[in-house]
Amino acid sequence: MVGYVIYGRGSFNQLDEIIAPQRKDGRPMVFLVDHFFSAAYSGDGKPLVNRMPVRGNDKIIFADVTFEPKTTYVDKLAQELKDEFGTVSGIIGIGGGSTMDLAKAVSLMMNNPGSSADYQGWDLVKQPGVYKAGIPTLSGTGAEVSRTTVLTGPTKKLGMNSDFTPFDQIVLDPELTANAPANQRFYTGMDCYIHCIESLTGTYLNEFSKSYGEKALLLCRDVFINKDRWDDDCDDKLMMASYAGGMSIAYSQVGVAHAVSYGLSYLLGTKHGIGNCMVMNQLEEYYPEGAAEFKWMVEKNNIEIPAGICNGLSEEQFDTMINVSIGMKPLWENALGKDWEKIMTREKLRALYEKL
Amino acid sequence: MVGYVIYGRGSFNQLDEIIAPQRKDGRPMVFLVDHFFSAAYSGDGKPLVNRMPVRGNDKIIFADVTFEPKTTYVDKLAQELKDEFGTVSGIIGIGGGSTMDLAKAVSLMMNNPGSSADYQGWDLVKQPGVYKAGIPTLSGTGAEVSRTTVLTGPTKKLGMNSDFTPFDQIVLDPELTANAPANQRFYTGMDCYIHCIESLTGTYLNEFSKSYGEKALLLCRDVFINKDRWDDDCDDKLMMASYAGGMSIAYSQVGVAHAVSYGLSYLLGTKHGIGNCMVMNQLEEYYPEGAAEFKWMVEKNNIEIPAGICNGLSEEQFDTMINVSIGMKPLWENALGKDWEKIMTREKLRALYEKL
Repeated sequence: MVGYVIYGRGSFNQLDEIIAPQRKDGRPMVFLVDHFFSAAYSGDGKPLVNRMPVRGNDKIIFADVTFEPKTTYVDKLAQELKDEFGTVSGIIGIGGGSTMDLAKAVSLMMNNPGSSADYQGWDLVKQPGVYKAGIPTLSGTGAEVSRTTVLTGPTKKLGMNSDFTPFDQIVLDPELTANAPANQRFYTGMDCYIHCIESLTGTYLNEFSKSYGEKALLLCRDVFINKDRWDDDCDDKLMMASYAGGMSIAYSQVGVAHAVSYGLSYLLGTKHGIGNCMVMNQLEEYYPEGAAEFKWMVEKNNIEIPAGICNGLSEEQFDTMINVSIGMKPLWENALGKDWEKIMTREKLRALYEKL
Repeated sequence: MVGYVIYGRGSFNQLDEIIAPQRKDGRPMVFLVDHFFSAAYSGDGKPLVNRMPVRGNDKIIFADVTFEPKTTYVDKLAQELKDEFGTVSGIIGIGGGSTMDLAKAVSLMMNNPGSSADYQGWDLVKQPGVYKAGIPTLSGTGAEVSRTTVLTGPTKKLGMNSDFTPFDQIVLDPELTANAPANQRFYTGMDCYIHCIESLTGTYLNEFSKSYGEKALLLCRDVFINKDRWDDDCDDKLMMASYAGGMSIAYSQVGVAHAVSYGLSYLLGTKHGIGNCMVMNQLEEYYPEGAAEFKWMVEKNNIEIPAGICNGLSEEQFDTMINVSIGMKPLWENALGKDWEKIMTREKLRALYEKL
């Protein structure tokens, strides 16, 4: 579990004080920040950058999260920090799920040899990383509490799942999510909603994951169904929903939507939130109530879910997606039970991809 | 936060494996176990003792939890372990809230000089304790997740609140709570219910504590109102309620029931669960809905709440209770706001104690 959790409006202002005891021997703190907050991206920079507690030789790196994080990018970031500083006091990730995952992975790769691709799997990481803190500016992915860091590697899209992966500290300040673009906010929020549906209908469920999943689901409904306009309360609730949804899947597993969308993002670089939405839009067979409610939320929030992403793909490309997806055995088992292979054949999966 | 959390029926069977990496240099693991599970207490011992993974020079200590834990008892247990072993690999607390608190406190006192009474307060503990794991056999107190360990000292009833206080590991196995006596189970369960009411109606509330409090409240209602007989599902849910209720107050604060019942247990040694119930039974003025629902649960579950505990106390004894209670400033402020001293006068508190 994450060792230290702070939640509250304005808690970002405590960051300087929070990380002060972690500054070691003149080594810098590295702020790995979603490029959305850079001057290059936004024209004149975002006020958030000016609020970061940069001291001494601290470094700000704007993370390119145009695509899902790749193992090659993690390795490059870690190597550059090693070349410049030897080591660092810590990595502070500020951004959405991709930035969270990058920060966790770079922290681990500061202290573990080789490539991050070597650690894609379960409990392969043997050394703790440098100190790492996560500060989400988008709510929904649950990456702030997860025990993984989803990376696209040379042969698979899979996380570095380990006891060393969770952040040492997270700062949950709902003010930071206030200005997110509405469609981005929806896609990422739906990641949380989909976590709940996959967890609550899954075969891995127990009372721990159920309690978290049910609470996160109610919070998602408050935000995306019961409210008629976005307000501070939505930011508060969706940040908590993300946390609770993340805890729910940490103690169970995700399901069909994630298994299918991983194939999409592996092949096409489709971002996780929108990819999940494209898939959930076609999952009536597996999650009848969840898919119907999802469609209602899409309509109510006036969001367009792109379609036709698989049009014109080659046989080989379909095969690649199917291989990646079918390889996510625990997800399928959670969703469909021990006999999942009899239910989800390659042909059926192919037909599903064709509908996206 | 607690670093490692396992939840699940039968997870107690994993204890040997869980603590194996924590065994250091031939130093023993100390199982601090509620005396309820001892042969002396139950006649022929309880099967749980035979399931504990005792190895080498490990030691089982049956904790006398007839009264709330005292600083003198913590100091004695720690000193005896130091005398016998120098130091130990870890302390494994197995029992109810008192045993949880004792285990946390003894762990800290293995590595901190002086008396545990020196550390009653906030952030006075400067050194981490030895490894400590908590395994609740009663659900409700939230002691398994709290950042404190409530102790009765020479001058106050107050915990060792610190970043070093939470357990390193908790094992939440609802099977272990199956055979608890019905009244004990009710009193301890109501500790959780009261946490929820105090947190949700308090001025310290934020969305984090609210989410946990609301979930815990629903789970308590499932167990004590919606069910007509106790079953495995009740054990599952109440264990999760305890965890969520504990998280809720960790991010807010308790209120009137706890402030008043602390006075009772300081003076009379009244156990926390039953003391809270006696007080909640008289709190219509402060928690009208909560107190009414509490009374309905008492009736529905056919529990008798003792009355008249303050009959015949001396002026001096009332003063002692009032001093202890009124000293719990954060609790009163959470319950009644910044101007709480104008609302809760010594006279009013005296009248409340007389009703108990």
